[in-house]
Amino acid sequence: MAHAIVEWTDNLTADGFVVGPLLELIAAAMRDAGGVFPIGGIRVRGVRVEDYVIADGKGDDAFINITVRMAAGRPEAFKRSFFEGLFDAIKVHLAPQIAARPLALSMYIDESDEASSFKYNTIHLRLNKGH
Amino acid sequence: MAHAIVEWTDNLTADGFVVGPLLELIAAAMRDAGGVFPIGGIRVRGVRVEDYVIADGKGDDAFINITVRMAAGRPEAFKRSFFEGLFDAIKVHLAPQIAARPLALSMYIDESDEASSFKYNTIHLRLNKGH
Amino acid sequence: MAHAIVEWTDNLTADGFVVGPLLELIAAAMRDAGGVFPIGGIRVRGVRVEDYVIADGKGDDAFINITVRMAAGRPEAFKRSFFEGLFDAIKVHLAPQIAARPLALSMYIDESDEASSFKYNTIHLRLNKGH
Repeated sequence: MAHAIVEWTDNLTADGFVVGPLLELIAAAMRDAGGVFPIGGIRVRGVRVEDYVIADGKGDDAFINITVRMAAGRPEAFKRSFFEGLFDAIKVHLAPQIAARPLALSMYIDESDEASSFKYNTIHLRLNKGH
Repeated sequence: MAHAIVEWTDNLTADGFVVGPLLELIAAAMRDAGGVFPIGGIRVRGVRVEDYVIADGKGDDAFINITVRMAAGRPEAFKRSFFEGLFDAIKVHLAPQIAARPLALSMYIDESDEASSFKYNTIHLRLNKGH
Repeated sequence: MAHAIVEWTDNLTADGFVVGPLLELIAAAMRDAGGVFPIGGIRVRGVRVEDYVIADGKGDDAFINITVRMAAGRPEAFKRSFFEGLFDAIKVHLAPQIAARPLALSMYIDESDEASSFKYNTIHLRLNKGH
């Protein structure tokens, strides 16, 4: 399984930011990772942030913060390579917003062990049926 | 203390999902755990998710994701037993939604140690007074 | 970098609570910590909670829960001292709400290591330019 939560400050709408395509970019990267992330377990969502104080509070700053939660156990080398590639792709995707105003972009990877995770998922069944 | 956050995708409303009873189910299970969760520290909340991409992005999928945060130190055997029981009860509660469309249900247990936790709680006082 | 997320139950608005000044209090404390938190990395936001069950579910209880995420590595003594001071300042700030109804106030400090953190931040550039 892999979860991603994308928090974004609502001043980004003025710069043409729409959250949907960024969510799709992240989900697609996970789907295309050679089976490391089972497709039925991919869940990416956006959270619009309306109340915030950034840095000295005097700029027109924005932030986008991505938190991934996934099961522990994937190799370190894969993780570094995959998430560096994903982060670079996100920067390219956000070029218009980066050009428009000061932006803090961040991504954190949290891992959960089996003993503290509980799962039930009927999406895999839909995918196995091929529809 | 025990926190629970219930994220749910808004397409579930079409299947009769209402978040309040699920929050109450979780809070009640914690209250009924023989004092392991002090009642004044129980805080369960819902987060409606409106922007999301799930799995291959081609289905009518939904997800509900529950994140528990509690103090470290409860016995492993209790945790496994309590959260397995809670997760089973949640599955039963969600039978109508599970029947209606593909659903990914997940629950993660995060523990905080004393040194990184700060608390002030006047709810215990209300409960001790019996009103 | 330092993130803070302030969740607050919406019944607090009846007691005069406004989230903005609390976000600013937290950001200001981080700015004034002698450089331990680079100013360009401070991101504090509020999350209004509308669906919740607290304690026995029978009171007029409220909660405010603050989650800090920062890079690992700051000295234990600094962390204890800084966050105890911040928590005390928050309690003083919330005196009107504490007087008005039972309130559970909590703060948790989560640390991320370098290997699981990805950052790109053009706010530092704005600050270095002095505007």
